[in-house]
Amino acid sequence: MLGLLLEMVKNNGAENPTDNKIPVGISNRHVHLSKTDLVTLFGEGYELTKIKDLSQPGQYACKETLTVCGPRGAIESVRILGPVRSKTQVEILKGDCFKLGTAAPAKLSGDLSGTPGITLVGPKGSILISEGLIVAQRHIHMTPKDATSFGVTDGESVSIQIDGLRGGIFKNVAIRATETSSLECHIDMEEANAMDLNPKSTITIIK
Amino acid sequence: MLGLLLEMVKNNGAENPTDNKIPVGISNRHVHLSKTDLVTLFGEGYELTKIKDLSQPGQYACKETLTVCGPRGAIESVRILGPVRSKTQVEILKGDCFKLGTAAPAKLSGDLSGTPGITLVGPKGSILISEGLIVAQRHIHMTPKDATSFGVTDGESVSIQIDGLRGGIFKNVAIRATETSSLECHIDMEEANAMDLNPKSTITIIK
Repeated sequence: MLGLLLEMVKNNGAENPTDNKIPVGISNRHVHLSKTDLVTLFGEGYELTKIKDLSQPGQYACKETLTVCGPRGAIESVRILGPVRSKTQVEILKGDCFKLGTAAPAKLSGDLSGTPGITLVGPKGSILISEGLIVAQRHIHMTPKDATSFGVTDGESVSIQIDGLRGGIFKNVAIRATETSSLECHIDMEEANAMDLNPKSTITIIK
Repeated sequence: MLGLLLEMVKNNGAENPTDNKIPVGISNRHVHLSKTDLVTLFGEGYELTKIKDLSQPGQYACKETLTVCGPRGAIESVRILGPVRSKTQVEILKGDCFKLGTAAPAKLSGDLSGTPGITLVGPKGSILISEGLIVAQRHIHMTPKDATSFGVTDGESVSIQIDGLRGGIFKNVAIRATETSSLECHIDMEEANAMDLNPKSTITIIK
């Protein structure tokens, strides 16, 4: 595994986006917490401790971690990403499903309807969320201006091309265009390893 | 992780190969040992203990495991696959490189020239092999007759298409055609998880 602090590696080698190369952000398993669940797990009045800014403006990795527990097994030291959100969401790797004993569907962040629940254990309590366990479907963050430049629209599904000996094409990559986004293609560690992508890699949109 | 016995899962859901669907075999990290290295690690006269036949004729998973040790860390319980080979070869996942602290190149099995060494620890001894650490480049085993049927030749590099929400295309998949092969596309667990492939999945060759 690529280390606990690499849940979302900020790309340091991005090419000029005008050459159609899009930097890659690689996610490890992580948790987004609601304010209510933060209180249950860490205690009344607890505030998350930022240790590193992520590439998307306002998003950050926290000092705090949780244990994620399924019916078959547990995964310790799962990083919390801040700030708190309206709903708790647990993003795992496909390979984690066997260890936890639960099958998480590939979903876009925030699309939690019908997803499985999971138990989260913190220093001051534990909760069983009724839904929110997903494998993040790959997606590309960009501004509407970027989208125009790339000839795509918010919500559209595109394919991305990865060069190299272990290269190929990932299909069904969602465009997520908002004014506050930073241009970056988000994939998880298994997707990165399968295609030999690292935090300095770039990908190209194809349709 | 998908369990220690899944180093090479025999496909049980193969479609009729005449419809161009090729079954998938998913590899976890594993070790092939030379006779000399087997003796060093397990003792004089030791014989590997078969626990499960693999899809390729004559190949099998063994009861025995080793600890693989790199400069940064170790991975325990790495399965040995039999029978013994002329040279010891350690096939790891890309994600293992960070934990071990060594960068393994993507290579076809047997193509070990210039690859890094690694330390192997067994119950009766340990060895530092001077080369043999690789990430297996994806490949498709088949007979020459299969190759003719698919319109490919031994040694050719093709692309494979994977259907589904997390689907896509893996490029640079080597054709390995021998008379004693069983039709199967070999990928590792990270590649399988990235594309949502399981032991009942099939893929299609595209060029």
